[in-house]
Amino acid sequence: MKVRPLGDRVVIKKLEAEEKTKSGIVLTGAAKERPQEAEVVAVGPGGMVEGKEVKMEVKVGDKVLYSKYAGTEVKVDGEEYTILKQDDILAVVE
Amino acid sequence: MKVRPLGDRVVIKKLEAEEKTKSGIVLTGAAKERPQEAEVVAVGPGGMVEGKEVKMEVKVGDKVLYSKYAGTEVKVDGEEYTILKQDDILAVVE
Amino acid sequence: MKVRPLGDRVVIKKLEAEEKTKSGIVLTGAAKERPQEAEVVAVGPGGMVEGKEVKMEVKVGDKVLYSKYAGTEVKVDGEEYTILKQDDILAVVE
Amino acid sequence: MKVRPLGDRVVIKKLEAEEKTKSGIVLTGAAKERPQEAEVVAVGPGGMVEGKEVKMEVKVGDKVLYSKYAGTEVKVDGEEYTILKQDDILAVVE
Amino acid sequence: MKVRPLGDRVVIKKLEAEEKTKSGIVLTGAAKERPQEAEVVAVGPGGMVEGKEVKMEVKVGDKVLYSKYAGTEVKVDGEEYTILKQDDILAVVE
Amino acid sequence: MKVRPLGDRVVIKKLEAEEKTKSGIVLTGAAKERPQEAEVVAVGPGGMVEGKEVKMEVKVGDKVLYSKYAGTEVKVDGEEYTILKQDDILAVVE
Amino acid sequence: MKVRPLGDRVVIKKLEAEEKTKSGIVLTGAAKERPQEAEVVAVGPGGMVEGKEVKMEVKVGDKVLYSKYAGTEVKVDGEEYTILKQDDILAVVE
Repeated sequence: MKVRPLGDRVVIKKLEAEEKTKSGIVLTGAAKERPQEAEVVAVGPGGMVEGKEVKMEVKVGDKVLYSKYAGTEVKVDGEEYTILKQDDILAVVE
Repeated sequence: MKVRPLGDRVVIKKLEAEEKTKSGIVLTGAAKERPQEAEVVAVGPGGMVEGKEVKMEVKVGDKVLYSKYAGTEVKVDGEEYTILKQDDILAVVE
Repeated sequence: MKVRPLGDRVVIKKLEAEEKTKSGIVLTGAAKERPQEAEVVAVGPGGMVEGKEVKMEVKVGDKVLYSKYAGTEVKVDGEEYTILKQDDILAVVE
Repeated sequence: MKVRPLGDRVVIKKLEAEEKTKSGIVLTGAAKERPQEAEVVAVGPGGMVEGKEVKMEVKVGDKVLYSKYAGTEVKVDGEEYTILKQDDILAVVE
Repeated sequence: MKVRPLGDRVVIKKLEAEEKTKSGIVLTGAAKERPQEAEVVAVGPGGMVEGKEVKMEVKVGDKVLYSKYAGTEVKVDGEEYTILKQDDILAVVE
Repeated sequence: MKVRPLGDRVVIKKLEAEEKTKSGIVLTGAAKERPQEAEVVAVGPGGMVEGKEVKMEVKVGDKVLYSKYAGTEVKVDGEEYTILKQDDILAVVE
Repeated sequence: MKVRPLGDRVVIKKLEAEEKTKSGIVLTGAAKERPQEAEVVAVGPGGMVEGKEVKMEVKVGDKVLYSKYAGTEVKVDGEEYTILKQDDILAVVE
């Protein structure tokens, strides 16, 4: 992985539709067109972020659900990723 | 349950109309079309959330009333859930 | 009472028009159509709410005046209640 | 007085136009139609309000100037009062 | 002076156009129509204001420049004053 | 200099176009019409400002770049100055 | 480098399109027209910024991804730079 996020940011990679069907998780309603399940590929160091202590709760490899519209999309070596704040991650799927 | 919420988030499952009639709780006015009673199915760890100490006050199995429009809806293994912050839960129904 | 409010929330029941005439309190102006006097029927535990220490100042049975539009209305066992934050209560009527 | 304000709230009674002429204070401009001079009739306990320590600086009987549009109007035993936060009181007139 | 400001508020009296010409200070642009130079006539006690310690930096008699639109205008014994927060005072003119 | 800024405020004087050409700094795009390079002519004491400790990082004589639209313009003894908060200063030019 | 940023600000220089192709990073969607990859050319001292302790996590020479629309553009000695807050930097590219 070539992107190291700062502060409480996390880099995630959206899961393909077929993987999502396997894990059995689908998002409903307006969220349908834009899948919100992803895998964590890099995690920032946390610590003091805007004057508040942030402890990172996710780790590389976690499957996560995240807020629609959260984060910024980037493409690294031809693959697309999203960089977002940990607080925009709703839950870990186990 | 396959979804583990982060921070002060809670996963709830809306109660069906017939259950609500039994417990005797109905929401009035504009809220009528969208029931706000639900059962807690998963609770985040709480702790430091955005620099503030949050203690979780609800537990799995609690029947709760929550703020209309709060949270994000997800579907896991064919069942629909809502993930929201504990602060969007108004009260526990006993 | 079957509803236990969380944090600094309070459950109140609006007083009927005739009771209000007895206590001698009427709201003026735009507030006229929507009475703001109520009786407290349940009080949250207070404590740390959004990172701030909140001490509950009202108790069950208090007659209170509250901010118009504050809170959410619910119906329990056929009776209507309003759940609001203690900070939306302006004063106790004695 | 039958109304006991909560937290840092204060109950005031607007002074009649004739009294204001005596004390020599008149408000100018857009404020003209709505007098802003009043007498304090009840004072909340102060203390921790929304996580901040508030010390009450006004006392019953003080003549005060307050921010236009601040507060909520109520009628108790046929008399009109305004309930507002102490921070909406600009100054004490001596 | 008959007006005692609360908290971090300050009572100022706008300087007449002729005085301003003497001190050599004129405001430019949109501010031209509304002079922003004034003399301090009363100073609040400072201390804890909205949970923050405020130290008063201006004293009675100071000539000050203040933010346009800041504060509320009042008339006491036929003279016009402005009550504003110390933070709306930009600088002391010496 | 006749203007002493309060708190974390700074008084600056815009540099003329010819000086800016010499130092080699020009602002691009929409900022072109309104030069943002200036010289510091007075610095507030810093300290507690709105409840936060502020340390002044600029000194009289510094050439600075500042945020467009920041601050208030005043004219003292026929010269134009801008009063702004130190946080609106982006960088010192050396 | 002639520009020393204040507080938690960072001066960056956008990377040319050809350099970006080499590192293999391209931004997608609406961001396409405005590259968000840049090299850090100067870093502020950090420390107390608006009452919060900020530790600088980037250093001169780092390749970074930053938020679209963040920062202010300046031209120094004929070269264009952007000054932005460290919090607007999403990640370091390695």
